[in-house]
Amino acid sequence: MSSYTQESAVTVLGLGPMGRALAGAFLDAGLRTTVWNRTAGKDRDLVERGAAGAASAAEAVAASELVVVCVVNYDAADAVLRHPDVTAALKGRTVLNLTADVPDRARDSAAWAADHGIAYLDGAIMTPAATIGTPAAVFLYSGPEETHQRYRSSLAALGGTHTHLGEEIGRAAAHDVALLDIFWTAMAGYAHALAVAQAEGITPRELAPFAKGIGEILPPIFEECAEEMAAGTFSGDGNPITSAVSSMAHIVHTSEQRGIDAGVMRAAEGQARRAIGLGHGADGFIRVADLLARQARAGTAGKSAE
Amino acid sequence: MSSYTQESAVTVLGLGPMGRALAGAFLDAGLRTTVWNRTAGKDRDLVERGAAGAASAAEAVAASELVVVCVVNYDAADAVLRHPDVTAALKGRTVLNLTADVPDRARDSAAWAADHGIAYLDGAIMTPAATIGTPAAVFLYSGPEETHQRYRSSLAALGGTHTHLGEEIGRAAAHDVALLDIFWTAMAGYAHALAVAQAEGITPRELAPFAKGIGEILPPIFEECAEEMAAGTFSGDGNPITSAVSSMAHIVHTSEQRGIDAGVMRAAEGQARRAIGLGHGADGFIRVADLLARQARAGTAGKSAE
Ligand SMILES: NC(=O)c1ccc[n+]([C@@H]2O[C@H](COP(=O)([O-])OP(=O)(O)OC[C@H]3O[C@@H](n4cnc5c(N)ncnc54)[C@H](OP(=O)(O)O)[C@@H]3O)[C@@H](O)[C@H]2O)c1
Ligand SMILES: NC(=O)c1ccc[n+]([C@@H]2O[C@H](COP(=O)([O-])OP(=O)(O)OC[C@H]3O[C@@H](n4cnc5c(N)ncnc54)[C@H](OP(=O)(O)O)[C@@H]3O)[C@@H](O)[C@H]2O)c1
Repeated sequence: MSSYTQESAVTVLGLGPMGRALAGAFLDAGLRTTVWNRTAGKDRDLVERGAAGAASAAEAVAASELVVVCVVNYDAADAVLRHPDVTAALKGRTVLNLTADVPDRARDSAAWAADHGIAYLDGAIMTPAATIGTPAAVFLYSGPEETHQRYRSSLAALGGTHTHLGEEIGRAAAHDVALLDIFWTAMAGYAHALAVAQAEGITPRELAPFAKGIGEILPPIFEECAEEMAAGTFSGDGNPITSAVSSMAHIVHTSEQRGIDAGVMRAAEGQARRAIGLGHGADGFIRVADLLARQARAGTAGKSAE
Repeated sequence: MSSYTQESAVTVLGLGPMGRALAGAFLDAGLRTTVWNRTAGKDRDLVERGAAGAASAAEAVAASELVVVCVVNYDAADAVLRHPDVTAALKGRTVLNLTADVPDRARDSAAWAADHGIAYLDGAIMTPAATIGTPAAVFLYSGPEETHQRYRSSLAALGGTHTHLGEEIGRAAAHDVALLDIFWTAMAGYAHALAVAQAEGITPRELAPFAKGIGEILPPIFEECAEEMAAGTFSGDGNPITSAVSSMAHIVHTSEQRGIDAGVMRAAEGQARRAIGLGHGADGFIRVADLLARQARAGTAGKSAE
């Protein structure tokens, strides 16, 4: 009766801001879309737009071959998926988990899915809900390449770029964690800078154009630093770690003299001073990344290959 | 005898990478340039290019009306400038201190200069030595506007943009500290992300293009956040602090599980959790800046107006 194939039907579990954006984009692209949310009522406008509102997660799962999960974290995803009725209904279907969490949770879920005859793909969404369905959306995937290929055309409904990072199921979450690390640390630095500036009589609007200038120099520096780390060269010509530490000390001093918590910069300064203490004071700052990575190599070598 | 006016003569004290770049740019622009460095011999190629090499700081100061100081920090600058012979020679001349340090050191030096009949301008260089003499150089100044105006044409020899931030002498250093706060915190986050990624089997070159993408979204977000803070609105629609904290916890967990120090993110997460504890969990992340700024308002109100 329906003109849709199973591949162009999709179920979305979880209707927070992101789940709703995903479901809306599937609907806009003409996919047969079934939705469910733990708390009832969040599907109203989606149903008005043509979605099928399921009475239970098991019923929602039964409606489509592809089941997209997007809830707050993996504890929530597990609470939904590992309910016996839902697990039974998922057999032979595919879960695409777009819920953010740590890589090991994705690994654990993939093992659970394999045990229950469920195909499993992990994903990470790197852009805000408002970008879904637009060219600005960025999706990362990891898991079996054939599974990703099978649903590529359905996922294209979400807009933007879709990158399959490899078969190792933890890779999407690992990228997510690393990229959010850059983002939230930078934001913490900016929040602190706005506070220190204000204490020094500089308004946010006065600082903003210069802050924008700092933001603009970061992308090429990020690329250069990655090359340095990849090559194992840590040239500090013109900008050694000792000079970075001198700036960091000025920031901590100015902040604390004004009574402003400088814990973030104190921790960063501590890592840089540790590099100097290990004899790397003349190296470039990104030597710190190498030393942090060595903590992992020393402490948990081989764990990532499990 | 000379075709130069006093205004187009300049002395540079300090011949580290930056001092040498400054002196080189003055020479290239045809200014009569006198140079001095604590450790002898660093002036050799500058002298070959036409600079006058002075035997002492006092002799160097006597040669020009404008004396540019660029040494490692204000302890070093004071060690040079507050030597009795140098202080005496500076009387009636102008010191432009391009040495980086905290705002209060600039304030202290301006008071000292006023006591000794020396005109004093503070400055901060926001770009690396290699940019000096090119359009990419960024110079910030604070102090008497008329002093800045008097030497504008000489300083134009350094290339790039020159912004006078106001008469309050600490403003250039305060901008410097706030902008370096953004820069070095972001770099610390990137170093940590490279390490976590590597522990998860993601190479620096694999992470780099995505990291660049994160860097590219920062400038417009910095502008929006400054507007939010200026307006006192902290809308968390779609991205509340609670959601940031969830990501931060994933970063700390993944890092520490791999044995990698997560102190920077732990500190950032602590500040965000404090905002939630104070009832701001539904606000946008930049509420953290407002709360940090309040620490200053509570602790040292009025100090910046001294
Ligand atoms: N929003 C964005 O811009 C954005 C961007 C990138 C990635 N993400 C990621 O996308 C995921 C979803 O984010 P979101 O913004 O839509 O909202 P969210 O606030 O992170 O999650 C809300 C959703 O999780 C559900 N949920 C929470 N606990 C549950 C449980 N124990 N059992 C079942 N469902 C539970 C909620 O159901 P109830 O309605 O019943 O509470 C709701 O559907 C998150 O992992 C987030 O990190 C979001
Ligand atoms: N390099 C850059 O790309 C850059 C960018 C922006 C801002 N800056 C700022 O520019 C300033 C100079 O930086 P730099 O890169 O040229 O080198 P630096 O390593 O920060 O400073 C070296 C200079 O300081 C002098 N010095 C140190 N202690 C001294 C003391 N007690 N008495 C007299 N002189 C002393 C050194 O003289 P000796 O040769 O005798 O040791 C040398 O001339 C710093 O404040 C830096 O933050 C630099």
